[in-house]
Amino acid sequence: MTDIGSLGEFGLIDRLTAGLQPLHPETHKSIGDDAAVIRQGDEFLLISKDLLVEGVHFDLSYYPLQHLGYKAAVVNISDIAAMGGTPLQLLVGIAISSRFSLEAIEEIYAGIRKACQVYGLDLIGGDTTASKSGLLLSVTVTGKAKENEIRYRSGAQKGDLLCVSGDLGAAYAGLLILEREKSVFKSDPQMQPALDGYEYILERQLKPEARTQLPQLLNEAGITPTAMIDISDGLASEAIHICRASGLGCSIYAARIPIDPATMLAAAEFNIEPLTAALHGGEDYELLFTIPLQDFDKISKFEGIHIIGHMTDADEGMFLIGSEGETAPLMAQGWDALLRRDPETRPSS
Amino acid sequence: MTDIGSLGEFGLIDRLTAGLQPLHPETHKSIGDDAAVIRQGDEFLLISKDLLVEGVHFDLSYYPLQHLGYKAAVVNISDIAAMGGTPLQLLVGIAISSRFSLEAIEEIYAGIRKACQVYGLDLIGGDTTASKSGLLLSVTVTGKAKENEIRYRSGAQKGDLLCVSGDLGAAYAGLLILEREKSVFKSDPQMQPALDGYEYILERQLKPEARTQLPQLLNEAGITPTAMIDISDGLASEAIHICRASGLGCSIYAARIPIDPATMLAAAEFNIEPLTAALHGGEDYELLFTIPLQDFDKISKFEGIHIIGHMTDADEGMFLIGSEGETAPLMAQGWDALLRRDPETRPSS
Repeated sequence: MTDIGSLGEFGLIDRLTAGLQPLHPETHKSIGDDAAVIRQGDEFLLISKDLLVEGVHFDLSYYPLQHLGYKAAVVNISDIAAMGGTPLQLLVGIAISSRFSLEAIEEIYAGIRKACQVYGLDLIGGDTTASKSGLLLSVTVTGKAKENEIRYRSGAQKGDLLCVSGDLGAAYAGLLILEREKSVFKSDPQMQPALDGYEYILERQLKPEARTQLPQLLNEAGITPTAMIDISDGLASEAIHICRASGLGCSIYAARIPIDPATMLAAAEFNIEPLTAALHGGEDYELLFTIPLQDFDKISKFEGIHIIGHMTDADEGMFLIGSEGETAPLMAQGWDALLRRDPETRPSS
Repeated sequence: MTDIGSLGEFGLIDRLTAGLQPLHPETHKSIGDDAAVIRQGDEFLLISKDLLVEGVHFDLSYYPLQHLGYKAAVVNISDIAAMGGTPLQLLVGIAISSRFSLEAIEEIYAGIRKACQVYGLDLIGGDTTASKSGLLLSVTVTGKAKENEIRYRSGAQKGDLLCVSGDLGAAYAGLLILEREKSVFKSDPQMQPALDGYEYILERQLKPEARTQLPQLLNEAGITPTAMIDISDGLASEAIHICRASGLGCSIYAARIPIDPATMLAAAEFNIEPLTAALHGGEDYELLFTIPLQDFDKISKFEGIHIIGHMTDADEGMFLIGSEGETAPLMAQGWDALLRRDPETRPSS
């Protein structure tokens, strides 16, 4: 028997979906991007599905239920944004054990409904069932886009600039704080969690937001991304997805990766490289995208976007370039749901 | 704190979704039917989502993995059929523990892919993640329908005939056999399961099929159902859904409820009323629908459809009428996912 861990999540998906051929002409793009794309007359329907599993993606000992509902919605909304689409509807499946009260489930729903309100989605259905053990949320989000608005992972061209929104690594830094305070609490339940001063990174972990406005803002600035993906598993993993889907390599300049000072400080406390959090921490839900080199001036003026590298030929490989010019192969050490053996140590989605 | 069990699944959903107002004009029908309905130009997109949870909906000690994948697809395809639509695409989320081998997951996928092939769906995406404990499958199915093809629960009229396809209670009878053989095996692992002669009811439990052709066949026969639902929770529960959504009552004649001889025999072995299996067993995935009285002749000639009762005024109530004319109020004693305390005793979906 083959151990799942030896394949990794993406190797597994490749195996399971090998040889699939769409039957319907409307099925425009299926597995292999942030969302599936279905033709609906002149427009396209986008559809994305993500699971959040207790003990794997979240720890209820420090994850407020309302935030959990919000996050479950946002991670799917982010997938639609990453395709260049407008999110429209949401379905939610919840498996819950009977230890949850009505009020607890209402908290989760309040978070989902809040996200629907913030991002303008209709909550249109779902399923609620018992669970033998933990809590599981399964969210499906639909969206729409015109054909020329859709961004795939596969459209990057050699020479394109690689850009990222916001800053990276903060969600992981927030997680480190939460895990530390949980350990402290475990060893001494009288201790109050010391969360002051960590507001930014805690919010990035507990209340992520999706960059739904960005595709439209780029469009208004005359910038047309050639490829796009959202950062759920870490910058390294997502950059590799774009490279592989586009048949290219890339060079990423470590010094150009945007990291917030609060992330820097937390990383120092834990004695880890801030770059590690940015490359492999994941859950930032920023957008990573490529644009033609001629849009350099336009993107340079665009607030909140960082050019972090460029796309190269596939045979040049995928590299991270340090401040002294030293190079290291880009590796997806990001959290991999299926390699994970100890649910206590490192959640993600 | 309020106990979830005191509300039941449908009471809970009512609480959680109270006051939801759609933002988008395309959101035609949301929570409260077998699938949500979204306008897409001249056509409508249907979208349904169901979870299958280990220890709640299935028991891996007797549920072959390939059948499980097939069933997870079929229960969602059945929801699209119940809306009068044509199923088109499927997304699957799987949460698995690392005790599963690659080959085991390939079996589940083989079942899902088989169902997609049989019913003509494209498998377009999903999510695969670790689970801390049991196996969970979350399937989303899309479909399409023209406006005049869509069947809601709410369209029944007073005087309409209540009809059902196929036969009822067999899936539950099959489950009783599987549970019995599991108990025997537990007490003596040398015993081989005695499954001979139970082929029909076992197949109804382990390999349910969706009545996707029926809406079209009814249409060709000039029969236009006024309301429709699929039987996942048992005839009683589904009939009540149609009554409540349509603001009506109903009378169902016990003697007219179709029950296969194999179901009768199994029920006798277990000393239960076959009618109980039909009313409350669920998982038959037959279609329950209402038609105008003037279509009586047409439906009478239609093979495999049984007229089991008729719709009445709401204030006449919902009744089951026995062979001597005695009446009993129709109660949804069907399996309720949220009332379930002992996962060993009674699965459903």
